[in-house]
Amino acid sequence: MSITEQLVKFSTVEVPEEAAAMMRLSLFDWAACGIMGAAEPEFASFCQAQIIEDGPAHVFGGEALGAAQAALVNGTLSHALDYDDTHFAHIGHPSVAVLPAVMALAETLDTPLTEAIDAATIGVEASVMVGVWLGREHYQVGFHQTATAGAFGATLAAARLLGLDKVQRRHALGLCASMASGVKAQFGTMAKPLNAGLAARTGVEAAVWAQAGMTAAEDGLAGPLGFGETHHGEAAEVKLPRKDWQISTISHKFHACCHGLHAMLEALGGANVDPERIGAIKIRTHPRWMSVCNIPAPKTGLEVKFSYAHAAAMTLLGHGTGAIASFSDEIARDKDIIALREKIEVVEDESLSETQSLITLTLESGEVRRLRHDLMTPITLDARSAKLRSKVNALLGEGRAEALWQAAIGTDLDAVTDCFAGVE
Amino acid sequence: MSITEQLVKFSTVEVPEEAAAMMRLSLFDWAACGIMGAAEPEFASFCQAQIIEDGPAHVFGGEALGAAQAALVNGTLSHALDYDDTHFAHIGHPSVAVLPAVMALAETLDTPLTEAIDAATIGVEASVMVGVWLGREHYQVGFHQTATAGAFGATLAAARLLGLDKVQRRHALGLCASMASGVKAQFGTMAKPLNAGLAARTGVEAAVWAQAGMTAAEDGLAGPLGFGETHHGEAAEVKLPRKDWQISTISHKFHACCHGLHAMLEALGGANVDPERIGAIKIRTHPRWMSVCNIPAPKTGLEVKFSYAHAAAMTLLGHGTGAIASFSDEIARDKDIIALREKIEVVEDESLSETQSLITLTLESGEVRRLRHDLMTPITLDARSAKLRSKVNALLGEGRAEALWQAAIGTDLDAVTDCFAGVE
Repeated sequence: MSITEQLVKFSTVEVPEEAAAMMRLSLFDWAACGIMGAAEPEFASFCQAQIIEDGPAHVFGGEALGAAQAALVNGTLSHALDYDDTHFAHIGHPSVAVLPAVMALAETLDTPLTEAIDAATIGVEASVMVGVWLGREHYQVGFHQTATAGAFGATLAAARLLGLDKVQRRHALGLCASMASGVKAQFGTMAKPLNAGLAARTGVEAAVWAQAGMTAAEDGLAGPLGFGETHHGEAAEVKLPRKDWQISTISHKFHACCHGLHAMLEALGGANVDPERIGAIKIRTHPRWMSVCNIPAPKTGLEVKFSYAHAAAMTLLGHGTGAIASFSDEIARDKDIIALREKIEVVEDESLSETQSLITLTLESGEVRRLRHDLMTPITLDARSAKLRSKVNALLGEGRAEALWQAAIGTDLDAVTDCFAGVE
Repeated sequence: MSITEQLVKFSTVEVPEEAAAMMRLSLFDWAACGIMGAAEPEFASFCQAQIIEDGPAHVFGGEALGAAQAALVNGTLSHALDYDDTHFAHIGHPSVAVLPAVMALAETLDTPLTEAIDAATIGVEASVMVGVWLGREHYQVGFHQTATAGAFGATLAAARLLGLDKVQRRHALGLCASMASGVKAQFGTMAKPLNAGLAARTGVEAAVWAQAGMTAAEDGLAGPLGFGETHHGEAAEVKLPRKDWQISTISHKFHACCHGLHAMLEALGGANVDPERIGAIKIRTHPRWMSVCNIPAPKTGLEVKFSYAHAAAMTLLGHGTGAIASFSDEIARDKDIIALREKIEVVEDESLSETQSLITLTLESGEVRRLRHDLMTPITLDARSAKLRSKVNALLGEGRAEALWQAAIGTDLDAVTDCFAGVE
C-alpha cells in the first residue's frame, strides 16, 4: 500500500485517548507560543497585510479572519519564538503546521473541540509518517520538513474535519503535492516561521479546494513526477500506527534557550542543593554542542541562551528559564550568577548522545552528586502537564495560563480561541 | 554576479519598445484565453471558493477580488485551456504566471497600463532567465517550470510595480524561494492550470509581504540550502539581456489542438489551392509526434485534435482551427473532410526537428508543390498581430475581440479588465 493510500485510510481511524490527551497538551503549549509570538513587533505589518476581510477564525492577537488567512497567520506567529513542540522522527515541529489549520477550519465549521483534537492528532501523526517517508536526505539537502511534511499532515487533518470522501482526500493530498514547500535557507529569518504558516494554509486550501471539485494527480505525493520523486524523498517504509502512536514521543521545550542546554537544565532541575554548599560543577555534553552553546562569559541575554555555565548557575540559584524574558541582559550581569559560574567546567564527552547531559556536583563537604538527563526519556502525561503548566505560567502569567489550560482540556473550542487575544 | 543579484539589478531597467510591444500581444492573447477559461464549468466551484471578499482586482468572469486571490484565479483560468503562450528556453508558459500577478496588483495600485506592461515584460524575461538557470534537469525530474521559474518572474514584476527597494526585492525573491512550487504529476488534471495560478499568487504575496517587512534568506534562489540546490537546479550561466530579449522568441498558439500539429497547419496555411485539384498529400514530421498526434480516423472532436490527416483536410477545405469549438464531433464526421483525408499519407522524417513540418502536395495535373514550416521561424510583429487577432476573433467573436485589441494597445488598464467579464 503506497503512503498515499495509507494516509487516505488513516485519516478516518478512531484516535486513542492517550494520543488525544497528548494533543491537548500540545494545543495548550502551541497557543501559549502563538500568544507570545503575536507580541513580537516585527510580525505586526505582515499580520496586518493578511487582514483583508473579517471572518470566523481568530488569530493570535485577537483579530478574526477567513480560515486560510488565519492558518497562515497563526502558523507563522506560533513558530516565531521557536518555542513550540518538536518530533525527532518527523525532523520537525508538528503542531505549528497542523494546529493552525485545524483550529481555523474548526472555528469556521463550528466543530466541537473533541473532534478538532482528533483531527489534529491525525494530522500530527500523518506529518510524522510523511516526514519519516521523506527521510533524512530530504532534510539534509535543504527542505524544511516542518513545512513540507507538515503540509501533508495539515491537509489530512483538514480533510477529516471537512468530512471529505476518499476521492476528495486523494485530490486534497494531490493538491498539497503542488503546494507543500519551504527551504532551510530561511533559517535565521522571519521566513522560517512563515514556512510553518504556509504549510498550515496549504492544509486548509488543499482540503477546501478538493471539496470544491478541484482535481489533482492520482498520487501527487508518491507517484511519478510527484512530490517525493522531485523533492529528494527516500520513500522509506512507513507503517500505519497501531498501539503506539508517534505523537507519544513528541518533545516539548521547557526552556526559552538553545536546545543544546535543555538536557543540562532538566538534570539540574532535580539537584535540590543549596548553591552556597557547591564546590565545583562539571558538565559533560555531546561534542557537537561545544561550538553551539558554550559561551563561557555571556554579556547579553541572547548570549546567555547559548551558555552552559551561565544557564546552569541561573538554575542552581533558582532563576526560571521558561519565560521569554528569563534571558535578559540584566541576568547576564548578575554578580551571584557570575560568581557561581566560575565554579563550572564544561567538557565534551563522546559517549553521550546529543540529547544527553551528565553533571557532577562536588559539594564543599566533599560529597559528590551525579545528575543526568536524556531528553528522549519518556515522561508521564501528568509530569509533562505539570512542566508545561509551569512553562505557560512563566509565559502568560498564572491567570491567563489557567484559563488556557481549562480551555485546552475542555469541550468548547471557542474557549480556546477566546484566549488568543494579545498580551501587552 | 549571482542570478539573484542579476534579477535584482534587472528589475528596474528600461524596457525596449519592441519587447513591450510583444508583451501587449501576449496580454491580448492571455486575456482571450482567460475569458474562455472562465467559461469552463468545471472551474466554477473553485473560483467561487476564492470569493471571500470584494476587492479592486477583476477576475475572468467578472468578479473583483483582492490582488492575491485575483492572481490565483486568473492564473488558473488563463491556463485552463492550455492555449496560452509558450517559451521554449523557459520550458514553460510565461504569461499565465506573470500577467495575472501584474494585472491584479496594477489594478489595485491604479497603475497606468504602460507601466504594467513594462513590469510584465520584466517578469516574463526574468521567468525565462530563471528557467534557463534551473535548466532541463529541473524540468525532467518533474518540476513544472511554468510555475517554479514563473513564480520568480511574477515576484520580480510585482516588486517593480510596488517600487520595492533593493533589500526588499532580495527579500521578495527570498520569500518566493519558499513558495515557488508545482509538480508535473498534475498534468492532465485541473491542478496543472492551478500551478500557474499559485505562481501568480506567489508573485503578489512575496512582493507585498517583503514590503510589509517580512525578511527571508539573503539568497533564497541561488544560495546554500536554497531553491536551486534543493530543486535540482543546474545553475546554468545566464546573462542579463542586452539588445535581444528572450520575449522576442515567445511562441503563441494559433490552433486549438495538439502542439504537434501546429507546424503542419502553419505550412498548409500558405497552400492556397483548390482542394478538388489535389491528388495526393504527403506530410513529413518528426518521429516523436507519430505516437502523439497521428490518429488516422478520429471519431470525436477531441481525437481530431490529435490527427494530422483530419486536421490537414479540415484546413485545406477552409475550416478554422483557432476556435475552441473548431474541434467538434460534427467535424470528425464531416464527409468531405473524410474523403480528402483518404488522400493523405503521414510519414516520419528524422531529418526534421520537432518544430518542423514538410508537406508535398501533388495536384491531379501532376504539378508538385512543397510547403514547409518551422515554428521557430521568427515572424514580424505585424504578422503575429494579424494571426493573434484572427485567433481571438475565433475565440471571442469580432466585437469582443476588437474591444480587447483596442484595450491591449491602449493606455487605460481598466479598459483591459473591463473585457474580463464572461462569455456565454
